[in-house]
Amino acid sequence: MTDRMRGLALLGQGEVGLVERDIPAAGPGEAVVRTTASLICTSDVHAVRGAVPIPDGRLLGHESVGVVHAIGEGVSSVAVGERVAVNAITPDGTCDYCQRGFTSQCGGPLGAYRYTARKDGNLAEYFHVNDADYNLAPIPDGLADEVAVYACDMLSTGLVGAENADIPIGGTVAVFAQGAVGLSATLGARLLGAGLIIAVEGIPERAALAKRFGADLVLDPAATDPAAEIRALTGGGVDSAIEALGAQATWEGCIRATRAGGTISNIGYHGADGPTLSIPLDAFGLGMAGKKITTDLCPGGRERMTRLMRLLANGRVDPTPMTTHRFPLAEAETAFDIMANKKDNIIKPLITY
Amino acid sequence: MTDRMRGLALLGQGEVGLVERDIPAAGPGEAVVRTTASLICTSDVHAVRGAVPIPDGRLLGHESVGVVHAIGEGVSSVAVGERVAVNAITPDGTCDYCQRGFTSQCGGPLGAYRYTARKDGNLAEYFHVNDADYNLAPIPDGLADEVAVYACDMLSTGLVGAENADIPIGGTVAVFAQGAVGLSATLGARLLGAGLIIAVEGIPERAALAKRFGADLVLDPAATDPAAEIRALTGGGVDSAIEALGAQATWEGCIRATRAGGTISNIGYHGADGPTLSIPLDAFGLGMAGKKITTDLCPGGRERMTRLMRLLANGRVDPTPMTTHRFPLAEAETAFDIMANKKDNIIKPLITY
Amino acid sequence: MTDRMRGLALLGQGEVGLVERDIPAAGPGEAVVRTTASLICTSDVHAVRGAVPIPDGRLLGHESVGVVHAIGEGVSSVAVGERVAVNAITPDGTCDYCQRGFTSQCGGPLGAYRYTARKDGNLAEYFHVNDADYNLAPIPDGLADEVAVYACDMLSTGLVGAENADIPIGGTVAVFAQGAVGLSATLGARLLGAGLIIAVEGIPERAALAKRFGADLVLDPAATDPAAEIRALTGGGVDSAIEALGAQATWEGCIRATRAGGTISNIGYHGADGPTLSIPLDAFGLGMAGKKITTDLCPGGRERMTRLMRLLANGRVDPTPMTTHRFPLAEAETAFDIMANKKDNIIKPLITY
Amino acid sequence: MTDRMRGLALLGQGEVGLVERDIPAAGPGEAVVRTTASLICTSDVHAVRGAVPIPDGRLLGHESVGVVHAIGEGVSSVAVGERVAVNAITPDGTCDYCQRGFTSQCGGPLGAYRYTARKDGNLAEYFHVNDADYNLAPIPDGLADEVAVYACDMLSTGLVGAENADIPIGGTVAVFAQGAVGLSATLGARLLGAGLIIAVEGIPERAALAKRFGADLVLDPAATDPAAEIRALTGGGVDSAIEALGAQATWEGCIRATRAGGTISNIGYHGADGPTLSIPLDAFGLGMAGKKITTDLCPGGRERMTRLMRLLANGRVDPTPMTTHRFPLAEAETAFDIMANKKDNIIKPLITY
Repeated sequence: MTDRMRGLALLGQGEVGLVERDIPAAGPGEAVVRTTASLICTSDVHAVRGAVPIPDGRLLGHESVGVVHAIGEGVSSVAVGERVAVNAITPDGTCDYCQRGFTSQCGGPLGAYRYTARKDGNLAEYFHVNDADYNLAPIPDGLADEVAVYACDMLSTGLVGAENADIPIGGTVAVFAQGAVGLSATLGARLLGAGLIIAVEGIPERAALAKRFGADLVLDPAATDPAAEIRALTGGGVDSAIEALGAQATWEGCIRATRAGGTISNIGYHGADGPTLSIPLDAFGLGMAGKKITTDLCPGGRERMTRLMRLLANGRVDPTPMTTHRFPLAEAETAFDIMANKKDNIIKPLITY
Repeated sequence: MTDRMRGLALLGQGEVGLVERDIPAAGPGEAVVRTTASLICTSDVHAVRGAVPIPDGRLLGHESVGVVHAIGEGVSSVAVGERVAVNAITPDGTCDYCQRGFTSQCGGPLGAYRYTARKDGNLAEYFHVNDADYNLAPIPDGLADEVAVYACDMLSTGLVGAENADIPIGGTVAVFAQGAVGLSATLGARLLGAGLIIAVEGIPERAALAKRFGADLVLDPAATDPAAEIRALTGGGVDSAIEALGAQATWEGCIRATRAGGTISNIGYHGADGPTLSIPLDAFGLGMAGKKITTDLCPGGRERMTRLMRLLANGRVDPTPMTTHRFPLAEAETAFDIMANKKDNIIKPLITY
Repeated sequence: MTDRMRGLALLGQGEVGLVERDIPAAGPGEAVVRTTASLICTSDVHAVRGAVPIPDGRLLGHESVGVVHAIGEGVSSVAVGERVAVNAITPDGTCDYCQRGFTSQCGGPLGAYRYTARKDGNLAEYFHVNDADYNLAPIPDGLADEVAVYACDMLSTGLVGAENADIPIGGTVAVFAQGAVGLSATLGARLLGAGLIIAVEGIPERAALAKRFGADLVLDPAATDPAAEIRALTGGGVDSAIEALGAQATWEGCIRATRAGGTISNIGYHGADGPTLSIPLDAFGLGMAGKKITTDLCPGGRERMTRLMRLLANGRVDPTPMTTHRFPLAEAETAFDIMANKKDNIIKPLITY
Repeated sequence: MTDRMRGLALLGQGEVGLVERDIPAAGPGEAVVRTTASLICTSDVHAVRGAVPIPDGRLLGHESVGVVHAIGEGVSSVAVGERVAVNAITPDGTCDYCQRGFTSQCGGPLGAYRYTARKDGNLAEYFHVNDADYNLAPIPDGLADEVAVYACDMLSTGLVGAENADIPIGGTVAVFAQGAVGLSATLGARLLGAGLIIAVEGIPERAALAKRFGADLVLDPAATDPAAEIRALTGGGVDSAIEALGAQATWEGCIRATRAGGTISNIGYHGADGPTLSIPLDAFGLGMAGKKITTDLCPGGRERMTRLMRLLANGRVDPTPMTTHRFPLAEAETAFDIMANKKDNIIKPLITY
């Protein structure tokens, strides 16, 4: 039957596997997309490990692009057959949070994080899109699906880390951790005019990629105290620090590495940090050093996706060196295992259909 | 001799007393002011208790106004004999921090906090002013010294708490604690267009003053969980919360009381909080709820002082109900004791000369 | 028949009259409101005089509140029978302009200005609401309809004039013209912490109302050169000037009255100014004096309406002194004539149903 | 005598020539710099043609770097012998305008524009620096003087044109005119994350340089209506337009090329435009299309110079392809003539010492 599809699902705590189910339907204002390319995210690994309470059988994934398969009543911005990208975060554009501009917090904290968290994810042959006119972004001609898919999460998250960091033109920036999110933040800091970018990363392959993506130097946290080193190198601290891991050590490093009046921009997911995150009061000037902390979750929506894909199409950034591995959907379990266990220097595995 | 003066000094840990010493001199670019009115600050109490490492004999005080007594070479903005106010924080306007706009962090963290912390304070008959052209602000005719003196710290601190809080017009604001700083923040939230102001305070006299200053309601933290109550009253949390005490409980209350995408504006001094300040990760959305934290230290400088005094002169705010006590300088020790021990429902003691 | 209604329509260039027609229907995502209170706007007068190309028979009006009469499929935020306010400007929340935050420009320039301009207005017993979940704002209990109706345009427009003006706390503001929009801007400047508000207005009744609404002084443009007087009073010009009329003279006055680095916030409708608006280059520093010009059109949407009504409900502003006249709908032609010809010192006529 | 020097002076309307005079002295807080590299600016040409009222004999020039020759009393940030750059604009950092952050407007409109306009310029073997601690910026080791000199005006002006343009990440930008300022603005738009840059320029050599500096395409205003073409290419207009010439046609082009809600950033000098600048009201949405206009004058100060030179030192931008010509000071008259008459496709002539 053509109306069945396969996808990668949570089978039970820590277990994943391909399952078969019905292709979703498009209700009013909704769409269904036939997937052409996906990336697996560390957040999928977190989900499988129990970070987000999801039922067994829930499909994983939130970084996918494809072709419009069906549209529901009232959808007017795209037609069946168009190539489209959909952000991991899918706001409705209407709730009070969205009207205030906090679209990732649609309806409440983290509310626009729907794939996997609230409904089936899109590591599957087809996926459902709520509020399609708000969320479906046509992929420009000439931009390959496997490039466009970076706009769904990595670029949106990494770049917003830089956008929120109040980087003065020519200013100094530290990016703590150079996984896929941190590497994307490095791309973002470079894209937004930072004059000096110091990355913090211990894995040599990632450090090399950080330099390729625009870092001026990379500090190994195993070999030095990065915050102290950064303060020494910059005469007091960077203008902006980006937390791209989600750990007490990198968070604290950001606060310590930033000068008075500087900004700490958090895009790390602190689900593994226990109930609290700790601020060192000496480095925080006892609450009076003028430091600012911002936090965000991958902003979505068609308009932003259009701008992110323009950056890709016009050669402003090239995140594809992060695609270290490729697998067809049939091998998604293997891909997930390599990702979950950080084998083989993996950064991002691309799933093809 | 006319070139001796009296002032209130730290005599040793926890001890204060009036001392006599030479009237300071005005070097190039500097000025000396003959004091006419001062307010004692809780920060003076903190200093005496050892929060800031200062030598015995150091004069206390940083909230004073007066008349220009002497100006050094090159000072051009005021003349001897003019009534002037000087902010508690006295930037040089020239260092990199100042050029970036972080004037309170002049030369480094908290660097423009000079009175008491780096030189004699101004709870004294005369006081010294660095970078006089940057810092001396003429007091408008018709504005009494004992009103203008509120611009030196309370208004500047309280109002910046509100200015940094990103209050949308008609938005909702919580102000945690209603001491002099919190009451000033309540004035500020009202002044900047908040549509609903919820104060948190347990002392009845302060709660009453909070309402007089513009709070729509006041929650007693002994009788309720303020953050939970605020979330219930606002359908998810306030747009902005102001931390005006400097304690883990109020800090955490601010984070819990704020909705996703909201701003926590810290103006509390967290010197008594131990080495760290703790963020509850559930209320922080694991670092992804779009919450922002800002911190600041009483912004100074003539231009700001001019605006603050305009607010006073034109009847926009009246902080004088906070002046619960008055003493001549000769009784400053008594005033300090009452302030230090929070006797007699004191809020601010005015010292006259 | 109960499904017919009356409303005030354009009958031909310069002519208006009550007409009867079908009550509109609510399609998917739409609503119909039974009107309880309306205000007539000078923009209605402009429309009748041909400023906006509209067909004969088009209903006028865009400032109305009422009770939900019907909701279309998919509308979930309100129920039939609820009291609601709808802004004059009704964005869809979904187009690229809306996603970027320029909701008044929905789909293109001035695109969310639909009533009268693109469909029937709401000076009628019933009116249609597009994108109802985005635009319908419940009126708080205790807030009268005839007060809430000020949120539909006057407050939203006047306040955004102040919001866009970059008023520093305690700063100086000039508001050029004190018709209903200018008076609302004066309310806004006061609400947002201006330390000195100078209104420019020649009609004594409006000047008096300007003072009541918060202006510190009012200059008569027939008796003085307001810009020169403002520069003299402020030592070089105001921080912010608000253009609330839409005329070359007030526009130029704003540019001349503003100091270097200041902001000119335009909320005037310049439809009668001919094809161009002229900037005096001397006052503009030949394009290098750091002056900024902002323009806006009455921001709409439920979330903003909720904040504006909170200001009304909590006593922050009281625009009702602007309601100089009241008429039942049956006398709407008379009301319109008085408004069109500025008879009897009219400011805003309220229409009741 | 060693205390005499040569420099290029205005000799009378339209006439320039090398003159000899005393090396300036450094008063308190001041410095004197021995020049090592200068660039001639179109503003020098304007000055000679009478745009700024200056006396005969006044030295020209405001783009120079060199070595500290003498420092006055109280100067502490640099020592004699250090290589330094000084911005064309030299604020005092202390006046009300500076304290508010409008440092180019020091003391009043365009007030920090001192070289040539208010005192001798620095197309001379030595030059004077007011407020030396505020304005002297050490040149990093490894950065050549002839590169650093671009920070004095071209980069600061061009980049602020982009900084003020509110470019959303990946957004669309038009830069009208590709002289040295416009080319620098193109560098700035690229540096700040624009996703599409459309330059407008008719001279082939400049168009080629625009592409080299980051423009995606260049429109020839002689061959097309650039604003109409830009609107067509972008589906309604760019997010941001930069006016880099100072002419009614380019100004109007910016307003017409920008979409509703967009920003026009003016860095052109409109001294030749007659008494007024004209805004087309249709493209301005009758004052309601949400368009914003910003204006600025080359921001100065050590801190900004440090960031600009960091961009140069770390290879973020390379403006040196604009150095089309080189002359020793002895040939400055020839250099000026070529610049004034735009001969030989000149963009920037470098003067060496």
